[in-house]
Order: sequence, then C-alpha cells, then structure tokens
Amino acid sequence: MSRPVRTAPADDLRAFALRGIPELRTGDDLAAAIVAAAVERGGLEDGDVVVVAQKAVSKVEGRVVALADIEASPRAVEIATAGEQQEDPRRVQAILDETAEVVRVRPPLVISETHHGFVCASAGVDASNTGGQERLVLLPVDPDASARGLRDRLLALTGRTVGVIVTDSFGRAWRTGTTDIAIGCAGIRPLLDWHGHTDSDGYVLHATTIAIADEIAGAAELVRGKLDAAPVAVVRGLAVAGEGSAQELVMPKERDLFR
Amino acid sequence: MSRPVRTAPADDLRAFALRGIPELRTGDDLAAAIVAAAVERGGLEDGDVVVVAQKAVSKVEGRVVALADIEASPRAVEIATAGEQQEDPRRVQAILDETAEVVRVRPPLVISETHHGFVCASAGVDASNTGGQERLVLLPVDPDASARGLRDRLLALTGRTVGVIVTDSFGRAWRTGTTDIAIGCAGIRPLLDWHGHTDSDGYVLHATTIAIADEIAGAAELVRGKLDAAPVAVVRGLAVAGEGSAQELVMPKERDLFR
Repeated sequence: MSRPVRTAPADDLRAFALRGIPELRTGDDLAAAIVAAAVERGGLEDGDVVVVAQKAVSKVEGRVVALADIEASPRAVEIATAGEQQEDPRRVQAILDETAEVVRVRPPLVISETHHGFVCASAGVDASNTGGQERLVLLPVDPDASARGLRDRLLALTGRTVGVIVTDSFGRAWRTGTTDIAIGCAGIRPLLDWHGHTDSDGYVLHATTIAIADEIAGAAELVRGKLDAAPVAVVRGLAVAGEGSAQELVMPKERDLFR
Repeated sequence: MSRPVRTAPADDLRAFALRGIPELRTGDDLAAAIVAAAVERGGLEDGDVVVVAQKAVSKVEGRVVALADIEASPRAVEIATAGEQQEDPRRVQAILDETAEVVRVRPPLVISETHHGFVCASAGVDASNTGGQERLVLLPVDPDASARGLRDRLLALTGRTVGVIVTDSFGRAWRTGTTDIAIGCAGIRPLLDWHGHTDSDGYVLHATTIAIADEIAGAAELVRGKLDAAPVAVVRGLAVAGEGSAQELVMPKERDLFR
C-alpha cells in the first residue's frame, strides 16, 4: 500500500482569542460580534476554524432559565440534599430536565446523557458567566445547527468560508480536570481517519481515528481562558474543511464499553 | 473577591511539528535530535513546550519487545481468541504484563489501568511505527522522569528553559476517536485551577480545573499528524511554566465515579 499524500493537518497552527465581544443577550447577532472583534486581528480568513463557547451560543439562543421559574420535583430534592454538599433542588431539576438518561449519581453530582447523546456532568447546565447569579444556561437544543447558522452568517457578513465548532468543558472518566470538546460543528470533519493507511514503516495503522474537533476545541480553550470573557477563538492553519456533525464524536451505545 | 490578574494562558498560541527527526533506536540522544530538528525553525525558545510522542521516548529508552520473545499465558490465549476478531496471544500477553488492573475486556480488546494509573486501551502497548512489524512498543516506565530527563538535556544543549510533555493517543469513554493526552510532563503545571476565582460577572467559578497539559498534547497532535514520522512538536506562546507531574491528571480511585 502506498503512502498517502498528507493534506491535513497543516504544519503550523495558530490560535488566538477574540477580545471585546460584549455580554450577550437573547437575539443578539453573535456572528456580527465575532466579525467586529476579529477586525483587530485582520479579520477572518478562509479555512479558519471559529471556536465558540457553548455559553455564548446558548445566551443568544435564549437557552437561559431563571432559577425562580423552576419547580423542583421530589427526585430533584432527594438528589440535591442526599450528599454532604447541598445543592439547590431547582438546579438539580434543570439538570434532570436536560437529561435523557442518568449515567451516574453521587449526590448532588449527576452525570447525564443529554438529549444530544453527550455524557457529561450536570447535563451541561451551568451557572457561571450568566449575567446574574440566579440564572442557568442550558446547552443549545441542536449545537450542530447553531454551528451551521453561525457559519452561514459569517459567510454572508465576510465572504469567508470558515469552520465553526461549538464547545463545552467536559470532565473525563479516569482523568482529573476538564478539557474543551466539540458539541457542535459545521464546515469541518470532526474525525480524521487514518484507517488502512500505512505509517512511515509501511505498517498498516489501526485504531487511528483522531477526534480533531475535540483537539481544536482544546487548543482554543488554551487561549480563551476562563476569566476574560473571551468566548470565541480562531484556530488557523489546519486543513480540516469538510462536512460533518459533532454527533460523529458520540460513541454509539452498542460500541460503548462503559455503559 | 477581586478579579485576579490573568497571566495564563497567553493570547496567542503557535504549534509546529519538528521535521526530520530520524528513526530512533535504544540509546539515541532524543534531545540532541530535537535540537537539530529545531534549527530550521529558529531553535527552541524559553517557555516553549516540547511535546514528544511516547513512542519516540519508549524507543530511545529501549521499551521495545520482540513478539517472538513473548510466551502467552492461558489467559492471554483466551482473551486473544474469544472474540470475533482474533489477536496474537503474545500481544495480549504483553498488554497483561503492562496492566495493573483490567478495567474492561471485550475480546480481544483490553482496557487496562497501567502500572502508572493510566486507563487506556491495550495498556498503551502499540505495534505501529516500531521499525518492524514484529515488535511492540511499551509505555515508558516513568514518563514524568522521561520528560524531566529530556528537559534537563535540552537545557544543557541549548540554554533554553522549556516544558516537556510526553504524550500518547488515548480513547475516551462515551466519545469516538482518540485525542493525545499527557502521560508525562516536566517544567509545566498540568492543571490550571480557577477554583475560587471570579468570572467576569463576579460569579465564583466552580469545577474549573482545566487539564491544560492534555489540551497542549492535543494541539501538538494536530500538527504532528500520524504519517510523517514527526514525533515532536513545539507549542509556543503559553505561560504554563511551573512544576508538576502527569500523575496529577490521574483521577484518584476514591473520587472516580466510573470504576
């Protein structure tokens, strides 16, 4: 088997955060805010991957609930109060509402499979950075569609063809800390598949499907930071354009060893 | 609580692979090969993170076994032959030898906790890129020590103070594809801890320990690729210098919800 021409990833990668994106509210034009913030970096370029934190997307899509509007079920109260650490039962209720299947519970912590199929703590429900302490930000209903919408609007505004990844910070089994991963994408291939290719020794590679969308999300997180209200980063220099869905990154249940 | 000064991560990140590192053998001076390969990129700089694929480290450390020298135990034969896909029982034996605790088995696939505490497929035992089809590459005995040794030698050769991460490609629970993660490190803080800090809304952040060493490993993988024999990449522009061990990235068993 001949050695394939390597077209991706590129030799050099650059990642930088976009500064000055204002506090976002329901209905805001996030793509326009990205374009404005990118001006000081010379604007977007064809092939850039625009990486957007889920919270920014959820806010403009109105995926925010007021804690005061939530009524906790008996189950939510039980989970919220059964552990050493107490939690607001209304927050647990919001988590249960976003949950397709509870994977693990250690009160008050809930690991959920979300309606999208993502397995994560608290079903992705988050309280920080919400413009107020009493609100919860939920994951977008369809993060791939969010990414596609942003991509289309960025094209319309700039004429540039970019990839878009919507990210969230997920914990991992067996490892400490979180890494940012892709929950939605558009205009990129989320997986890079080397199956059947040969390596430099002529050996056929096995098990070499690389979750590049997750690695791009992580690279973006390194420059976005947590404290500077920089919900968007640009990752440049990768040849990852294509079609794909972040659903490709979800392990099908029948292949999953850890259910 | 006042908003902390943000010193890390930096605004811009650059990552590039070092080309032209030759096929490595036991006893080779990997640091010298890195320094030579870095010349065309202007050399290493203080604060660079040098990211090295485990296989390169294992090869120079002699962590390679010939399949012919392995005798399979009855258990290895059973696992190798019980599934639909057949595996060489000697390869399964090598995996069991590297395993502290078997976490899951779906013959012939074994998910192991290694002697280092890493949970991964095949205990990190790998057959590709080994300079021959009949050899297996094992994880370094002490990847943190490998990273420290490389860091010290790079300092001696160049006068530059860099961080070093030794990486491997791990699968993840619930997600498809692999990402590169840190199995050893030196001269960097593998975790970035925002606990108790406030975000831009004055909200105290919870659960915000970020596994930056893993995100750096992933960024490096994006430029290293799989086919170009580029076992080393440089990640530049991050302020992550410090002391730490990749063992900090291993979830302690008593906190692990997935055992």
